[in-house]
Amino acid sequence: MAERIPPDSQFDNLNGRSVVTLDDVSTSQISYLLRKARFISNHLPEVSQAAAGKILATLFYEPSTRTRLSFETAMLRLGGHVIGFSSAQNASVSKGESISDTVKTVSNYADVVAIRHPKEGAALVAAHAASIPVINAGDGGHMHPTQTLADLATLQSRFGRITDLTVGLCGDLTFGRTVHSLIETLCRFGNVRFILISPKELRTPQYVLDRITASESCSYEEVSDLTSVIGDLDALYMTRVQKERFFNEDDYLRLRDTYILDMEKLALAKPTMAVLHPLPRVTEISTDVDNDPRAAYFEQVRNGMLMRMALMSSVVGITLPGFAEDRPQEVQA
Amino acid sequence: MAERIPPDSQFDNLNGRSVVTLDDVSTSQISYLLRKARFISNHLPEVSQAAAGKILATLFYEPSTRTRLSFETAMLRLGGHVIGFSSAQNASVSKGESISDTVKTVSNYADVVAIRHPKEGAALVAAHAASIPVINAGDGGHMHPTQTLADLATLQSRFGRITDLTVGLCGDLTFGRTVHSLIETLCRFGNVRFILISPKELRTPQYVLDRITASESCSYEEVSDLTSVIGDLDALYMTRVQKERFFNEDDYLRLRDTYILDMEKLALAKPTMAVLHPLPRVTEISTDVDNDPRAAYFEQVRNGMLMRMALMSSVVGITLPGFAEDRPQEVQA
Amino acid sequence: MAERIPPDSQFDNLNGRSVVTLDDVSTSQISYLLRKARFISNHLPEVSQAAAGKILATLFYEPSTRTRLSFETAMLRLGGHVIGFSSAQNASVSKGESISDTVKTVSNYADVVAIRHPKEGAALVAAHAASIPVINAGDGGHMHPTQTLADLATLQSRFGRITDLTVGLCGDLTFGRTVHSLIETLCRFGNVRFILISPKELRTPQYVLDRITASESCSYEEVSDLTSVIGDLDALYMTRVQKERFFNEDDYLRLRDTYILDMEKLALAKPTMAVLHPLPRVTEISTDVDNDPRAAYFEQVRNGMLMRMALMSSVVGITLPGFAEDRPQEVQA
Repeated sequence: MAERIPPDSQFDNLNGRSVVTLDDVSTSQISYLLRKARFISNHLPEVSQAAAGKILATLFYEPSTRTRLSFETAMLRLGGHVIGFSSAQNASVSKGESISDTVKTVSNYADVVAIRHPKEGAALVAAHAASIPVINAGDGGHMHPTQTLADLATLQSRFGRITDLTVGLCGDLTFGRTVHSLIETLCRFGNVRFILISPKELRTPQYVLDRITASESCSYEEVSDLTSVIGDLDALYMTRVQKERFFNEDDYLRLRDTYILDMEKLALAKPTMAVLHPLPRVTEISTDVDNDPRAAYFEQVRNGMLMRMALMSSVVGITLPGFAEDRPQEVQA
Repeated sequence: MAERIPPDSQFDNLNGRSVVTLDDVSTSQISYLLRKARFISNHLPEVSQAAAGKILATLFYEPSTRTRLSFETAMLRLGGHVIGFSSAQNASVSKGESISDTVKTVSNYADVVAIRHPKEGAALVAAHAASIPVINAGDGGHMHPTQTLADLATLQSRFGRITDLTVGLCGDLTFGRTVHSLIETLCRFGNVRFILISPKELRTPQYVLDRITASESCSYEEVSDLTSVIGDLDALYMTRVQKERFFNEDDYLRLRDTYILDMEKLALAKPTMAVLHPLPRVTEISTDVDNDPRAAYFEQVRNGMLMRMALMSSVVGITLPGFAEDRPQEVQA
Repeated sequence: MAERIPPDSQFDNLNGRSVVTLDDVSTSQISYLLRKARFISNHLPEVSQAAAGKILATLFYEPSTRTRLSFETAMLRLGGHVIGFSSAQNASVSKGESISDTVKTVSNYADVVAIRHPKEGAALVAAHAASIPVINAGDGGHMHPTQTLADLATLQSRFGRITDLTVGLCGDLTFGRTVHSLIETLCRFGNVRFILISPKELRTPQYVLDRITASESCSYEEVSDLTSVIGDLDALYMTRVQKERFFNEDDYLRLRDTYILDMEKLALAKPTMAVLHPLPRVTEISTDVDNDPRAAYFEQVRNGMLMRMALMSSVVGITLPGFAEDRPQEVQA
């Protein structure tokens, strides 16, 4: 099994490690990955053969085109190869094989695995069974650490930092795992003020609020109205408000519009505010926002690919030509 | 958005352009692609690294193995990479994402898109949304410009020209979009005599006939019997006669055999006639015809791959070692 | 069509040949492949560009992730490319195209085909139609020659030979084609004693027993109890006992445990015994056996990939840098 490491440990090297949650990656390693992704962004031709001969296996037990293609592109742009499957129908699952056996088999083919599975805990099981690094590409509740890395990279690229920010999170804050993971990770770095914008039915869970409180330099405020706070925000993270979360259609229709970002609401925001969204977007961001320079959600897609390049090259243990491995302080400086 | 260009414009460069229909490609560009494909055919080893580092995304919202594998092979034989999906089930479509958002996302991963979609107009929507070139690999009615390019390349390779030919089109001429697109494109070059061979239920639509009439140097004749005209033809383009096009089974059975090409009918044809078919073939060409030198339909498959190599290398803007870019007159000379 | 050759013929060269069954490969060629796989195992970096520019088409009309990924990895680790489909849903099969036409089409794209199909005989049909080598990756009853090659390579790597062994085969010996193919192939080399361990409902078919008898240097014994013979075995080949093979649930439950290999039964075996299994495994080998050095079934996965590298490089006709082609006697020496 590729070992997991305790958070913020002294052991500062991702080589050979699995990443099931971001607790597997220390803050200095996250800073290192942010720095590495930025390097890659500016040196794509130079790194295009760095992973020559390496193979990524994408084991997607449920379809997720965006995430799968991001991992695959990341490996291809490093010069490696890709094998895998894109849904359980196309896999041997029907024959009753365990995830462990599948991963032990694939350990003979590939150098790194990206796994997506509908059941929570599947990625951890895979990481235990594998003799190669396993990266969680989403299991149960669609939590996946590389989405949070994409979010962080977008804040970093827009503001040059991931601290000293007022970050609004808007929509479904109860079930949105992406949001919880982002809050928890930002709290590890500190100095963030969270504005939690949601209907009362979809408030942030207590354990997430407790996590913010536990970080001395962080604070939060819960509000139900986006327009009243949008002017204060450095970043606004939008999420989907799913119809099925509501008790009745009337509540849904009444509330939905409140949490749709359109040009009218955007007019109240700072000119430097960044709008993030994990995608896919349905109606919660009006498409005319796409052309506003504050729209950062398609940049986020690119940043996700770059962070996956940074992460995979690290866990596979390859060096990127021209990249200085030993300047971890730069990002946080 | 990758821009579309008006037909036969002065701007004679496909670099960065989308191809939704062949109206996006001028006749001199088509000639250029024919010449380029012939060059590639004779220089496969020399071009095998020309697209190194480039990525094709095959977004196939409905399965079409032949076309998808042709595009993928074309990119691989140019030294590039491929990502994508082969059916909507395996894509994120179930989450309600728009084609535009998918294509904007994929624009961050790839250098060129080949899209296939059951709805007419999907490729145009994709081309508008993308920041990279989009090639229509079939949308609604299974029209796709690279099929026509394959057809033209096959005529070119058999006859050294795509003009001054008598071309028979046989079978379902009402619903066969492939046939309409071929007729329209040949009319842009001129000097073709069309023999339209079909049952009265499946005649060529008036707007296609009008297109032929509008071309001074082209003409047509409508007949219902293949054997009576096969001896006049330089090329015979066969299509499938689908059962569901008929009002009753009796009509279908009576007519079907009339439009099946077998060795008996082929005996009446010129020894140099070329038999084309867009494939897949069901019963409309007897398999013993496959070994006759006039059978050109598997060559057509290869020509399709070569034309996709020519087209993709052009829209992605790479140069092929040893290929002279500036001799567009050669093909038509 | 890529030609098939008679067993043990003088023509000792796989270049351009299809492999539908192991009867298509002479014993000296099998020895050659075993030697080549061992070379590859020790020289992966040296062979990593040997098949540059070559394309494998994986035509999987039914899903088989393990086998498909093995073939794909094998080609990628030789530096080649891969195209294909992983299930009939994603193929053009719904349009009624014949296997022959699909394979003739794909012959224009690829350099070698690996085909898997639910119907027996499909691979032979494909081999007849193709102008490139076709390798059977399983058709009907899931027989496929490269599984047997993986089994042989595992015996070879564990014992340095595939003769002079006592080989136990345990479980479903009636329907397990893998087992029949292994027995038949070992009989071609000779000097093997088979212990056939199964419930009376699932005994080895007479034609397989006759094959053993026909080989002067081979013998067999049929028993129903694993524990009584396990101490005699050099290798134990486990197979699944499927519930649906039994007339009633009681028989199934009673018999199942008898044919499960666990640490208790393994304690009775020689310390050098090798446990093989074609995988996927369900319950027939207890997972705590995995960590025992006698467990060879995940090695078998790796050996399968190596043998596919050996086989594909041979039929495609590429040379491996540093490999001595002309020492076929080494393996059997």
